[in-house]
Amino acid sequence: MQRFSDNPHGPWKACGLVTLLTDFGHQDTFVGVMKGVLYGRSRALRAVIDLTHEIPPQDIDLAALHLAESWSWFPPGTVHVVVVDPGVGSARPILVAEQGGHMFLAPDNGLLGPLLGEEAKVWRLEPERLVEQGLASALSSRTFHGRDVFAPAAAALVDGLGVAEITSRAPDWKSLRPPAPLRLGETLFEGRIERFDRFGNAITNLEGETLAGGSSPPAWQVEVGDWRLDLAGTYADVPAGAPVALINSSGRIEIAIRDGSAAETLGLARRAPVRLRRRE
Amino acid sequence: MQRFSDNPHGPWKACGLVTLLTDFGHQDTFVGVMKGVLYGRSRALRAVIDLTHEIPPQDIDLAALHLAESWSWFPPGTVHVVVVDPGVGSARPILVAEQGGHMFLAPDNGLLGPLLGEEAKVWRLEPERLVEQGLASALSSRTFHGRDVFAPAAAALVDGLGVAEITSRAPDWKSLRPPAPLRLGETLFEGRIERFDRFGNAITNLEGETLAGGSSPPAWQVEVGDWRLDLAGTYADVPAGAPVALINSSGRIEIAIRDGSAAETLGLARRAPVRLRRRE
Amino acid sequence: MQRFSDNPHGPWKACGLVTLLTDFGHQDTFVGVMKGVLYGRSRALRAVIDLTHEIPPQDIDLAALHLAESWSWFPPGTVHVVVVDPGVGSARPILVAEQGGHMFLAPDNGLLGPLLGEEAKVWRLEPERLVEQGLASALSSRTFHGRDVFAPAAAALVDGLGVAEITSRAPDWKSLRPPAPLRLGETLFEGRIERFDRFGNAITNLEGETLAGGSSPPAWQVEVGDWRLDLAGTYADVPAGAPVALINSSGRIEIAIRDGSAAETLGLARRAPVRLRRRE
Repeated sequence: MQRFSDNPHGPWKACGLVTLLTDFGHQDTFVGVMKGVLYGRSRALRAVIDLTHEIPPQDIDLAALHLAESWSWFPPGTVHVVVVDPGVGSARPILVAEQGGHMFLAPDNGLLGPLLGEEAKVWRLEPERLVEQGLASALSSRTFHGRDVFAPAAAALVDGLGVAEITSRAPDWKSLRPPAPLRLGETLFEGRIERFDRFGNAITNLEGETLAGGSSPPAWQVEVGDWRLDLAGTYADVPAGAPVALINSSGRIEIAIRDGSAAETLGLARRAPVRLRRRE
Repeated sequence: MQRFSDNPHGPWKACGLVTLLTDFGHQDTFVGVMKGVLYGRSRALRAVIDLTHEIPPQDIDLAALHLAESWSWFPPGTVHVVVVDPGVGSARPILVAEQGGHMFLAPDNGLLGPLLGEEAKVWRLEPERLVEQGLASALSSRTFHGRDVFAPAAAALVDGLGVAEITSRAPDWKSLRPPAPLRLGETLFEGRIERFDRFGNAITNLEGETLAGGSSPPAWQVEVGDWRLDLAGTYADVPAGAPVALINSSGRIEIAIRDGSAAETLGLARRAPVRLRRRE
Repeated sequence: MQRFSDNPHGPWKACGLVTLLTDFGHQDTFVGVMKGVLYGRSRALRAVIDLTHEIPPQDIDLAALHLAESWSWFPPGTVHVVVVDPGVGSARPILVAEQGGHMFLAPDNGLLGPLLGEEAKVWRLEPERLVEQGLASALSSRTFHGRDVFAPAAAALVDGLGVAEITSRAPDWKSLRPPAPLRLGETLFEGRIERFDRFGNAITNLEGETLAGGSSPPAWQVEVGDWRLDLAGTYADVPAGAPVALINSSGRIEIAIRDGSAAETLGLARRAPVRLRRRE
């Protein structure tokens, strides 16, 4: 899988794309209103792309997972706006981060931690500098920064404003550090189920591609609960209704039921342990 | 909160944006098909923005609330298309309204009432004039005017067609008038819960910003059921799991549970009474 | 109802529009990531339009129905991408089809069958030819062809690549052939309920417009379970809460409850028989 971010790239230069990742759901107009502000304030905006708005309320762990898996499939120059923000309206800063030619806007609650590497640059957004430059209103609400702060800041970045114009140095910032898989032996690793997708597939934190990617199957087994599953290549390698373990499209070990729901059928739970073991 | 509509603006001039607000949901292709017609018929269309499609079927009260809270965050020149239309295919007219440099298309069932002010101009859409000018098909269905009438009309307006070309005078039109809050005393007001948002926050019809906006908290209390809540500034002013009342991002009194659902935890119901009282 | 596809049209020429129809739902970032690839790889892309992503997992019958009803409302030059694909990663081919100036990309599992006519041209996508031309990565996953194959191929078609550059001949291909309605008498037809829409309306496979379109109602009756319903013109022809049968916006016989759910109130089931009978 060649991601756009694997390509050589120069310094940050906006490409006109904005992604949105929130816990706002679809029943209200929160997301639509943010887009109104983005389109109203930016001339260079090409498109706003919804990553997902179905993050359960305030679940910053899950938001961090989704963002870390998704961002690099967008072209450099994309501004990624993440609003899962239990601390909205409090003194928590908003971070602006640059990595791989992408820009990220998110509350300083740790959710950028899993994706930012050593090379990332991180600043603090200074909302009043947006106001001074006429880029946002002085009358910000204290409950909807997505509309009043994030969207105006993203619009300004899309239109070419320099990051330095609206940020200050970030002396430190929070970083979620979900537990890493354990190496229990030469060829035995233990991780956990991080989340379930729409199909009921269980996505783990085991980097299957790195750990077992070169081997010809079924050289490895995946153990979850009482199940021992040979590592397969794709869902269709087993009959309909059968369980299957594979390396998924993000390089992770995933446990699925072909044409069914592993979460339901196997009774799996988020954070349950999963082992990856080389067969004898 | 400075809205685009607060800016000085000249006469109506399309900006290329269309918003959609419907009760069509996401399981069918109704919304996608409307967008197909919009993009197929308009050359100047910049973007179509979903306000929400999760209005419960035929709930025109709720659609009116969402539209009234949302429209002014879009730039002047936006065409807002609302299709919550229990009377589709009957003789009910379709209204075209202009206010603040925005254009609105909606069935004449009252839902534009809460947002239109004295200065608004209101016409009746004449679908056969769309047909005469080659802007819509003569073979309109009687069950999907979103596709056959609203979308072609919006596309024409986006492309610069004059309103007079496709409308006639509206001698009268329906207007929902939800009950206004009562003033029970010098500093005591009673309103009601109008709706719940995705987070389970209860949104009232009490204009908190107007009534209590200038005071330094906790000068006011909000009363709902057996609860007496000091008016706070934002969710994070109380501990996780605690109830909180605040002035929300639309200037309304809102009752929430920090990191939880007020609807569930406090057992609140739509249209339940809520009082705003100045503390002694 | 005049569809864009009824207009005269020349050979295929991309218009910048892409539609997506999947079973990916909204809780994950599958759809957003596909759009990232589309916008990242195509310069000529005007908009990506969601038809629906709420197809129940692997329900190719339902996907086929939705696509067949929707595609012709988009302008010629649209690329329709359908990813309901139980066989992802197996040897099943991916089809590229051209009809009426539209292009379709879908797995070869039969779902294009109901919409493709005699005049359609059908090819097999050759993913490695995308790779050879630098249009997709050599490192495709085996579980997310939407991202790794369908999106890059659609982007290339939008940007003007000739179909022949990325396809080979399709010697044969699968085609779902849902049972056609039966003619039981001169003026008596039996079909079935194909699906329910968001409102709980039951959509049948009876081509009401063709069979009964010219008659002045109530010349025909619709029979389902113990109900005998006169064919009406629109929902508003009956009182709120009453059942109604009509010819819907796709020309099909539909059974509804005005301002209610026919699925719930009448206890209807998918695939239940429905008869259309001319009144004596």
